[in-house]
Amino acid sequence: MTSPVLPSRGRVRPLALAQVSLTGGFWGSRQTVNATATLAHCESWMERLGWLANFDRVADGTTGPDRPGWPFSDSEVYKLLEALSWESARTGDPEAEAAIKRLTARIARAQDPDGYLNTCFGHGGQRPRYSDLEGGHELYNTGHLLQAAVARLRGHGEDELVRLARRAADHVCRTFGPGGRAGICGHPEIEVGLAEFGRALGEERYLEQARLFLDRRGHGTLRDIPLGRAYFQDDVPVREARVWRGHAVRALYLAAAAVDVAVERGDDELLGAVERQWERSVARRTYITGGMGSRHQDEGFGEDWELPPDRAYCETCAGVASIMVSWRLHLATGDVRYTDLIERTLYNVIATSPSADGRAFFYANPLHQRVPGRPADPAEVSPRAEAGERAAWFDVSCCPTNVARTLAALHGYLATSDDDGLQIHQYASCRIRAELPGGRAAAVDVETAYPEGGTVRVRIAADADEPWTLALRVPAWAAGATLTEGGRTRPVGPGLARVRRAFRAGDEIVLDLPMEPRFTWPDPRIDAVRGCVAVERGPEVLCAESRDLPDPGALGSLVVDPRSAPRAVPGGALVRGRALALDDRPWPYPAVPAVAGPAAEPTEPAGTVAGAAEPVAGAAGAAGAAGDGGWTDVPLRPYHAWARRGPSSMRIFLPIAPPPPSEGA
Amino acid sequence: MTSPVLPSRGRVRPLALAQVSLTGGFWGSRQTVNATATLAHCESWMERLGWLANFDRVADGTTGPDRPGWPFSDSEVYKLLEALSWESARTGDPEAEAAIKRLTARIARAQDPDGYLNTCFGHGGQRPRYSDLEGGHELYNTGHLLQAAVARLRGHGEDELVRLARRAADHVCRTFGPGGRAGICGHPEIEVGLAEFGRALGEERYLEQARLFLDRRGHGTLRDIPLGRAYFQDDVPVREARVWRGHAVRALYLAAAAVDVAVERGDDELLGAVERQWERSVARRTYITGGMGSRHQDEGFGEDWELPPDRAYCETCAGVASIMVSWRLHLATGDVRYTDLIERTLYNVIATSPSADGRAFFYANPLHQRVPGRPADPAEVSPRAEAGERAAWFDVSCCPTNVARTLAALHGYLATSDDDGLQIHQYASCRIRAELPGGRAAAVDVETAYPEGGTVRVRIAADADEPWTLALRVPAWAAGATLTEGGRTRPVGPGLARVRRAFRAGDEIVLDLPMEPRFTWPDPRIDAVRGCVAVERGPEVLCAESRDLPDPGALGSLVVDPRSAPRAVPGGALVRGRALALDDRPWPYPAVPAVAGPAAEPTEPAGTVAGAAEPVAGAAGAAGAAGDGGWTDVPLRPYHAWARRGPSSMRIFLPIAPPPPSEGA
Repeated sequence: MTSPVLPSRGRVRPLALAQVSLTGGFWGSRQTVNATATLAHCESWMERLGWLANFDRVADGTTGPDRPGWPFSDSEVYKLLEALSWESARTGDPEAEAAIKRLTARIARAQDPDGYLNTCFGHGGQRPRYSDLEGGHELYNTGHLLQAAVARLRGHGEDELVRLARRAADHVCRTFGPGGRAGICGHPEIEVGLAEFGRALGEERYLEQARLFLDRRGHGTLRDIPLGRAYFQDDVPVREARVWRGHAVRALYLAAAAVDVAVERGDDELLGAVERQWERSVARRTYITGGMGSRHQDEGFGEDWELPPDRAYCETCAGVASIMVSWRLHLATGDVRYTDLIERTLYNVIATSPSADGRAFFYANPLHQRVPGRPADPAEVSPRAEAGERAAWFDVSCCPTNVARTLAALHGYLATSDDDGLQIHQYASCRIRAELPGGRAAAVDVETAYPEGGTVRVRIAADADEPWTLALRVPAWAAGATLTEGGRTRPVGPGLARVRRAFRAGDEIVLDLPMEPRFTWPDPRIDAVRGCVAVERGPEVLCAESRDLPDPGALGSLVVDPRSAPRAVPGGALVRGRALALDDRPWPYPAVPAVAGPAAEPTEPAGTVAGAAEPVAGAAGAAGAAGDGGWTDVPLRPYHAWARRGPSSMRIFLPIAPPPPSEGA
Repeated sequence: MTSPVLPSRGRVRPLALAQVSLTGGFWGSRQTVNATATLAHCESWMERLGWLANFDRVADGTTGPDRPGWPFSDSEVYKLLEALSWESARTGDPEAEAAIKRLTARIARAQDPDGYLNTCFGHGGQRPRYSDLEGGHELYNTGHLLQAAVARLRGHGEDELVRLARRAADHVCRTFGPGGRAGICGHPEIEVGLAEFGRALGEERYLEQARLFLDRRGHGTLRDIPLGRAYFQDDVPVREARVWRGHAVRALYLAAAAVDVAVERGDDELLGAVERQWERSVARRTYITGGMGSRHQDEGFGEDWELPPDRAYCETCAGVASIMVSWRLHLATGDVRYTDLIERTLYNVIATSPSADGRAFFYANPLHQRVPGRPADPAEVSPRAEAGERAAWFDVSCCPTNVARTLAALHGYLATSDDDGLQIHQYASCRIRAELPGGRAAAVDVETAYPEGGTVRVRIAADADEPWTLALRVPAWAAGATLTEGGRTRPVGPGLARVRRAFRAGDEIVLDLPMEPRFTWPDPRIDAVRGCVAVERGPEVLCAESRDLPDPGALGSLVVDPRSAPRAVPGGALVRGRALALDDRPWPYPAVPAVAGPAAEPTEPAGTVAGAAEPVAGAAGAAGAAGDGGWTDVPLRPYHAWARRGPSSMRIFLPIAPPPPSEGA
């Protein structure tokens, strides 16, 4: 069956990719752009930079220690191959098919007779194989090769790519298997690749090798590095860890593999450990966007509650990896909190990265941009992950191909099934033709303008003789949702809203999700956004952009009125806000500027540098009493669309104006 | 004359080091610990790690590309030599003198016949001289050598160290002078070294070379790097820059040199540029501690208002460099805002770094530590700048020797003179024996318990036939200060409080500075500390440490009552605070926890994830109405003393409890 993840057991099952197709809308159009623009874009950049020719040079014996690209550039080729394989299976696009054959042929020539395949080590004066497990990324590259082979095997069947991947996997097992070298890779990925390739081939050895890598980790197996062993999760065994830490993509790829191994081995202790890590990490180390990774220095998680919006790293790849973990946990447990997070991550990380034309990408996804980026040159490689503008390609260019492979298989993440019926988790116009045990057809067509509109129409497409259950996920944020069937409307709360019947073709079930914009308040322990509020609308996090303000510079001193609900407007929302008029006093630090705005609200605390301790909020000014002077409607737009109209400053969390003074103060 | 900085002109003049001596107290004891412990500590570590032997190996022809230490390790030896030279001049300590001779002899042997002196380049298979100006630090090292030679020349007179430094400077001038290679060093420092060495020797060529390096910078002279040219200030010419940016130490060493060149060349445009950069950077890119550098990734300044307390880098060396800049600006202009900042930086960065025994140091000086550090092993090199604990030595160990050279010459930064009198800027028990033009003695003894106490007694130590002016700096924070002389007390405002008289020995002038702890409110544009307040006492920033709380974990949910003034207690202050009882809801993010503390104050905003927009502050609970239930006295201590009693979590900026609800809300 064609699907990126096919566990042998679990509470629910993925649908085959062939059973679902996107028919337009928010995600359908993105999948199309990915197919028609991004895939070729990625290949052409890798050709231009010599990352493809690296394979040729190994084959021709002309490579050396100075080959272009980072040690992990091979993996970009494999991620592109994975994306192409899903795409070819989805549409039968001959160009995708041709690209797969073209790339496979070049890769195959570079494989050593014993199965080893890497363009950065072991040839022509390069460092010896596996001489730098901490930083060399050899096994990481192989893991992505195996994921590409899974896509090819499931979408097409055995071919040269699958065979060479098998040789590479066998080489890994020989080298690092029982009795071999007890090493692991500095960047987890081989584990998840081996596990799925093992499942796809029914090859128990690969699963066992994944387990072995997993169990070796966390015991100081790798050499220490300045960033510390937590950077690559070699500090604590995965089953003992309480929270994700270190490099976010590494942590999440590892967690995904841990779920695979736990499920296949019936290791409930390990599964429970990952569930608890998810729970704590999502509560304390995850942004409102679903983004993960608070630090630039190590592209890593920070401490609990360390969630700066401005220096948020939130690497696009970490969003992809987070979905990998949540999807596996959902398949194992059926818990919709995981598909809730997938929705959040899809709309606010994955959708944020690519430009509308699919030829530029965000690498980091900060929640606050103080200074507009500079327009990116579409012909230049961006040396920096942080830019404020989407870039065509990066020096470290992991994100474009990660977005590509995710979008190419996205229809596989919309719904699941179990013995009793179909569960729809992500709302998009689509066609689902699944089959339940007993030959019951679970065939539906979904029509929706989501997330612009909140109405989701599910039309049954085939008669059923036996009853089955259609379950629709009601997101945790969707208070006030209703379900209409057979002319009856009822309220439905967060979780799965179920309808069980012997459905007839033409039956319609309508889910109405409340799409009024809403304030979302951060946990008081998130120091970096204290005194701020975010606005969300449906699954979309909204943001304010400087270019929507009459004075773009005013974004830096914007405050919003939390007593006035955000109002819906097409494409976003309006909040009541105003810019504080702040003067600059350079000294003494910290300058407490006088607030000279039209309605002098109490933003000037008393007891300032002059030393006397006095009441703070409400100490000065006459509050909202001044009427609406200075207040104006501030437009908010979906975060994923920020900087699409050119460079802009931006913020998601908006400072609230202090409340009016109280009697007691 | 012996002084670290001796401009040929300026509004005020430094005193000679020989004219001032610390006689105990806060800084006197630190200078003593530096002399008796830190200097030997630094030498022994550099011996142990082979950084000293690097010189021997060059001399013996046994060095190679694999020499131990970073390319800038030579500079640590030179910074230690500078510290030893000031120390030897201060006390005549034979051990310091012996160490100088010992180190100089080893260094001298490594100098090439043409004057080039570096242990990392140009010998025995190492990369060629000046083949990596961006990262090689060759000229940087030489700059520190010249600063050491300045200390030796002024404190002792010409000797081998001075002569070899002269040969090195000549080599730099030949290589990079007019007609030579138009290069600059990736790390500014040669400029400030050349400028002062030129002043010390009256060697105009060196000043001119400093000017040349300065003028070459900012034109893309260096190759671009992934962090961008702003990292090493090669993005914008120094006279055109509006603000400090990039690597903080680099930016500040460069600014110091720019002041030197501006003063010596009468270049008021350049001086004005640095003054404006100082003004903007101090207002917008400087922490309340005086610390500079908001980012770990590049050890650099962030954007305006980007001042996260938790990930504050605030490298100790940047504190040293900030003092270098402010001191030069003060000498040029006489403006006390510069000595105000020096005070802030001395008490809250420089005093924070070393342990009480002078054998361990903070490298980074964050304002918020969420998780206590692990006890540092005094026998191990810390690979990390961030630790939460002072470390004996670092992989990159620039800070210990920078603290050492600053403390060894600290008495040079206490006071200045002009034609009319003496200005005292930093209050410490000390003895000053200056001479004013016309042979007037400006001799005073200062006695104070500052900063524990706010009384500063200045006793005149010599009769004067002619009147002169004693000026005492009243810090900007010191509202309510008074000056008492001749039995009369008068209020004095921030700035210089002056007394002009034909003083008689025994006359006493007493400055009383208000030492009540005070709230300090951050600028509303500093997003990272919105809704928080800091407490300062005199020049000291205070902090809360977990080990002072009955439940150390409560620091993470501590709020303080801004309506209740902080109260002084010996060694610190008390604020009224309480820990919020927050429960953990892992999902949906962002969890808005119920507040279940004894007095349910409105920390639970309504209108949460459920979507309905409702008033925020004051929405729930009965406010302070619940009496003092839950409120308690939270002890605050000087930030510079944090983690001295062992690992601890800590924060300077304290969240304030929301005010009680108002009628209107």
